[in-house]
Amino acid sequence: MSVRCVITISYDGTAYGGWQVQPNAVTVQQRVEETLARLIGERPKVHGSGRTDRGVHARAQVAHFDLTAPFELRNLARALNALLPADIRVTGCRRGSPDFHARRSAASKEYRYFIWNGSVLPPFLRSYRAHVVRPLDERAMQAAADLLVGRHDFAAFSANPNREVVSTVRELRLLKVARRGREIAIRAEGDGFLYKMVRSLAGLLIRVGEGAVAPDSAAAILRSRVRTARVPTAPAQGLFLWRVRYGGAILERLNEDDDR
Amino acid sequence: MSVRCVITISYDGTAYGGWQVQPNAVTVQQRVEETLARLIGERPKVHGSGRTDRGVHARAQVAHFDLTAPFELRNLARALNALLPADIRVTGCRRGSPDFHARRSAASKEYRYFIWNGSVLPPFLRSYRAHVVRPLDERAMQAAADLLVGRHDFAAFSANPNREVVSTVRELRLLKVARRGREIAIRAEGDGFLYKMVRSLAGLLIRVGEGAVAPDSAAAILRSRVRTARVPTAPAQGLFLWRVRYGGAILERLNEDDDR
Repeated sequence: MSVRCVITISYDGTAYGGWQVQPNAVTVQQRVEETLARLIGERPKVHGSGRTDRGVHARAQVAHFDLTAPFELRNLARALNALLPADIRVTGCRRGSPDFHARRSAASKEYRYFIWNGSVLPPFLRSYRAHVVRPLDERAMQAAADLLVGRHDFAAFSANPNREVVSTVRELRLLKVARRGREIAIRAEGDGFLYKMVRSLAGLLIRVGEGAVAPDSAAAILRSRVRTARVPTAPAQGLFLWRVRYGGAILERLNEDDDR
Repeated sequence: MSVRCVITISYDGTAYGGWQVQPNAVTVQQRVEETLARLIGERPKVHGSGRTDRGVHARAQVAHFDLTAPFELRNLARALNALLPADIRVTGCRRGSPDFHARRSAASKEYRYFIWNGSVLPPFLRSYRAHVVRPLDERAMQAAADLLVGRHDFAAFSANPNREVVSTVRELRLLKVARRGREIAIRAEGDGFLYKMVRSLAGLLIRVGEGAVAPDSAAAILRSRVRTARVPTAPAQGLFLWRVRYGGAILERLNEDDDR
């Protein structure tokens, strides 16, 4: 008999080749699986809510795995944190229903993209912000963002993934640009995101904010469904997987961790 | 004819053996002097407002040096930042009067000590906060802090410096403890601080907050003028040199940088 464990993980992606296990880089998934193996003597496959790319951070990634060895779940987070490096923290651990799946059960995801818009990037934020020196017009950015919200084919905002994608249609439920002093935050929430989609949206919004592209052109770019150089990919270091929402009974239980 | 340059520097102390040049570690002062040498072909001695220890950060350290080579001061900060590593940033550069001295002209200094008081330290703050799991009572901490404010002999809060100190009397003008969620900030402002004095004050306040020491005992410890194990030195990573204040004409000009 096995138990389905659901953990919430916060990580600094700077030192990692992304979330997903791959041959030529240390990844967060790998570190978590290795640490579970050290702790409980079995190495379950850990399923994340989705990949994050090299250098991308997570405030609250969600992942699940099955444990067959007996282990007190309420002690698991503390035990994992004692063995994990300080740039990966387990912030919560719950029992999931047997059919819970971190990726397939997700109802929506929220990413946040942070820009430091000033001449000098504070050293303490150097791994956590994109740096844009030229003054950004956040109202122009929001005007462009408003044209992208909704259910659309976002092929123009996806990097060529070299893999089969059934559909490039996604529902972007929220795309908000907010300035606080020299910092600009872009919130993107949707039912799912294509490969490098958030960084592509951020890349276009930065160009709009700089005045290099008119806000209106966002609509034409979206309609084109072709990725071109008009849409740059914003740097990985500004991106955070912020929250994953689940419907049904699991929701409340996960929110205790997510809403820290 | 030389020009006295006054720069404001922000640095992440994690990778450095402190501010001051020393034989067996890379220091911030060394990096700044080396970078000046690369830039202008002469290596002036850079005088900081004071030392910071290994792993201690600075939001706004102030330093001065004399330039004999001609250089446009308004370009110096940008040119230095282009060559400095991203964990050291020059946030401002001004011309000082010939008798300005970063250490001797300082009217007061402010340090801030940051504590993360929760079970899990967020990975993004791991180099910038002391981590205290046990719940801290910030009102008890403030009660102890109030007994330490004023002009006193702070020998009980100084690590053995193995060097001549003319006097261990300092005026502590402000010692404030404030909680914001899981974060506790200790602000310490005074005319000067002894070696490891802020970390010693923080160390005692943490013990008081944990309930290990009564707030009242701060007065007796201060009066004893003897450093003992009752006063631990809090970890370097929580400490930031926050601001250096100068009297007279230089004040306004520096504040433009400091108050960012």
